[in-house]
Amino acid sequence: MAEDRNMAVVTCSAPVNIAVIKYWGKRDEEAILPINSSLSVTLHQDQLKTTTTVAVSRDFKEDRIWLNGTEDNITHPRLQTCLREIRRLARKRRNSGDENCNTFPTVSYKVHICSANNFPTAAGLASSAAGYACLVYALAKLYGLEGELSEIARQGSGSACRSMYGGFVQWVMGEKTDGSDSIAQQIKPESHWPELRVLILVVSAERKPVGSTTGMQTSVKTSPLLKHRAEKIVPERMKEMTEAIQCRDFESFAQITMKESNQFHATCLDTFPPIFYLNNISRRIINLVHKYNSHHGETRVAYTFDAGPNAVIYTLHQHVEEFVEVVKHFFPPEENGGQFLKGLPVKSVSLSEQLKSSIQTDPVKAGIQYIISTKVGPGPQLMEGPNHHLLGKDGLPKQIPVSF
Amino acid sequence: MAEDRNMAVVTCSAPVNIAVIKYWGKRDEEAILPINSSLSVTLHQDQLKTTTTVAVSRDFKEDRIWLNGTEDNITHPRLQTCLREIRRLARKRRNSGDENCNTFPTVSYKVHICSANNFPTAAGLASSAAGYACLVYALAKLYGLEGELSEIARQGSGSACRSMYGGFVQWVMGEKTDGSDSIAQQIKPESHWPELRVLILVVSAERKPVGSTTGMQTSVKTSPLLKHRAEKIVPERMKEMTEAIQCRDFESFAQITMKESNQFHATCLDTFPPIFYLNNISRRIINLVHKYNSHHGETRVAYTFDAGPNAVIYTLHQHVEEFVEVVKHFFPPEENGGQFLKGLPVKSVSLSEQLKSSIQTDPVKAGIQYIISTKVGPGPQLMEGPNHHLLGKDGLPKQIPVSF
Repeated sequence: MAEDRNMAVVTCSAPVNIAVIKYWGKRDEEAILPINSSLSVTLHQDQLKTTTTVAVSRDFKEDRIWLNGTEDNITHPRLQTCLREIRRLARKRRNSGDENCNTFPTVSYKVHICSANNFPTAAGLASSAAGYACLVYALAKLYGLEGELSEIARQGSGSACRSMYGGFVQWVMGEKTDGSDSIAQQIKPESHWPELRVLILVVSAERKPVGSTTGMQTSVKTSPLLKHRAEKIVPERMKEMTEAIQCRDFESFAQITMKESNQFHATCLDTFPPIFYLNNISRRIINLVHKYNSHHGETRVAYTFDAGPNAVIYTLHQHVEEFVEVVKHFFPPEENGGQFLKGLPVKSVSLSEQLKSSIQTDPVKAGIQYIISTKVGPGPQLMEGPNHHLLGKDGLPKQIPVSF
Repeated sequence: MAEDRNMAVVTCSAPVNIAVIKYWGKRDEEAILPINSSLSVTLHQDQLKTTTTVAVSRDFKEDRIWLNGTEDNITHPRLQTCLREIRRLARKRRNSGDENCNTFPTVSYKVHICSANNFPTAAGLASSAAGYACLVYALAKLYGLEGELSEIARQGSGSACRSMYGGFVQWVMGEKTDGSDSIAQQIKPESHWPELRVLILVVSAERKPVGSTTGMQTSVKTSPLLKHRAEKIVPERMKEMTEAIQCRDFESFAQITMKESNQFHATCLDTFPPIFYLNNISRRIINLVHKYNSHHGETRVAYTFDAGPNAVIYTLHQHVEEFVEVVKHFFPPEENGGQFLKGLPVKSVSLSEQLKSSIQTDPVKAGIQYIISTKVGPGPQLMEGPNHHLLGKDGLPKQIPVSF
């Protein structure tokens, strides 16, 4: 926390997470309590992160928020919930007579929030998870709060609770009606499985799909398969997936990941009216992965898709180069289309004719816009030094040009 | 049955059926016993039928079969099963001392079979159902067999048992291991609901999808959702659908039909590796139907899709003209593409601007190849008179040019 005369300011960053056991459906819309537990991998912030600066000052007239350079509506109910909950904790701590309290700013001051992603919204990654995790983490740092914060992040956006930790994280669904046991827990830190790699294949989409909040509401109401999945299938898969991660068993990890993705999209199709998130390119990627694995006689690569057409690929470091080359071959980038491969560098390799012919599909030009290459990463970080702040000394956004 | 010196010959026709409660998955591959009951509507043979001529003669040296003008393999196991079962019944009847027996040909004679569809295979309709129903029905007529024949047709192709009756037909899954109670039953005849109309939208497909035999094997092995569907969901839906048909309640009939189609495709997606039968045009048709119904504030039209991208639409006669016009508007036919509307005539009408704009989608040229307009129809028919025979007096196929 930096104090600048009247203003206290903190900047933090938080990661994106990609579920391998999917969250789809709430049992309580208000408190954001899920119908099943879920499990995710936290991605590295060198490639994908949200940065959020929070500042309080007695000079601020009202709470305000800026997202990616534009002022947004502070009265959004979920944002209000997070602010209220953090302030409640801060007050509670103060009232408990904690002697460190005076180092931290007064709760009654208004807050300015400025948040930005280092990746384009067009990437279709659930930026609300990183966003709410970052907000809650930054506010907690500002007020000097410790302890369980994922419960608050969850009330901003369900999957945000999982972005509160690095590595491999489960969101335990909990049983209580107040949601106090519906929290995220780290299963293993990011250092546990250093060979694991992640590729995000950003697919060219025709149109904006159904939002996940509305989508999951309709699914809970109408899909008999979703109910069965949540009650009977997910508990078993949570156990199997946890074991696969603990043993670094890529074969099992990959198989469950793909089956989970498929089952999630199956429940979307069982929703009435049905919801389609996968497009033709998504389906081609699925076929490509199965053919690639079959060619090698082992599961080297796994796909997973969230509420959109983009694929997230999990693989091991020794297979990244060949698989990226396969993607480039079957989805040749548009000429003059800009950088195709972003993130961690990947060397070009040559593909055997045998591999190409066993995939047996026609290349689709520009079907994939670009690839982001990344790996497993840590949880939210405090960013020290005033250069990181997105808010200037006047408490307003600095004019930093955004580039990706 | 016509006798021409040494040869006894019979020609019959049989209908296509389209399931509204879907059959997907066998509990016994050999006997073709399903994991759930199913229910279908028999389509009218004026538009879609298989015609089969069967002939026996002491002069025939071996069993032979011709399909759509080309000789095919008579040793196909399922074909052999049907021949064997029919001959077994014929022998049994003869051994029982039935005095009519002498009017019918000797079971030991070899058989010639010639079969043709009046619709192109490209229509992607399950022609094996009509084909096996027609074969079994024609052989039964030839040997003068009466009674329950759907059990034999089922052993040719599961859904063929439903083509043994007209109107609305259920295939009761049965419980016995010998399959003797896994038979088709008519719920209501074709005269029961004269307002019901059927439109087949033949979609342009990129490639041949996974065959249904292989597809359902993989689904039974790998999809946990399919198991739940078969055990818990279908029994309830069979009851609801039967009631909807009995009451001619189009709203319920349509809703269950669409949910069933979606759930079947959901279980295909839950199969591992996943199976995709719907393509982008199929999904656009689904969206179009939902928007059309919502525009009118009632369910006027229902879609159902089998193991391919073609849509079958159920509607009521008073809505056919407008809906066909909507299809023509949003899937404009290719110029010089041949006749777009086949089957029962449908008058052109004009669409309101309000309707067009509430559907809110871009037209896709040539996305649909053509429409076949038809209705509910009767079961297999004996075709009397020698002109109908597909086999000539020499027991070989007549050279009749096939045209659609």
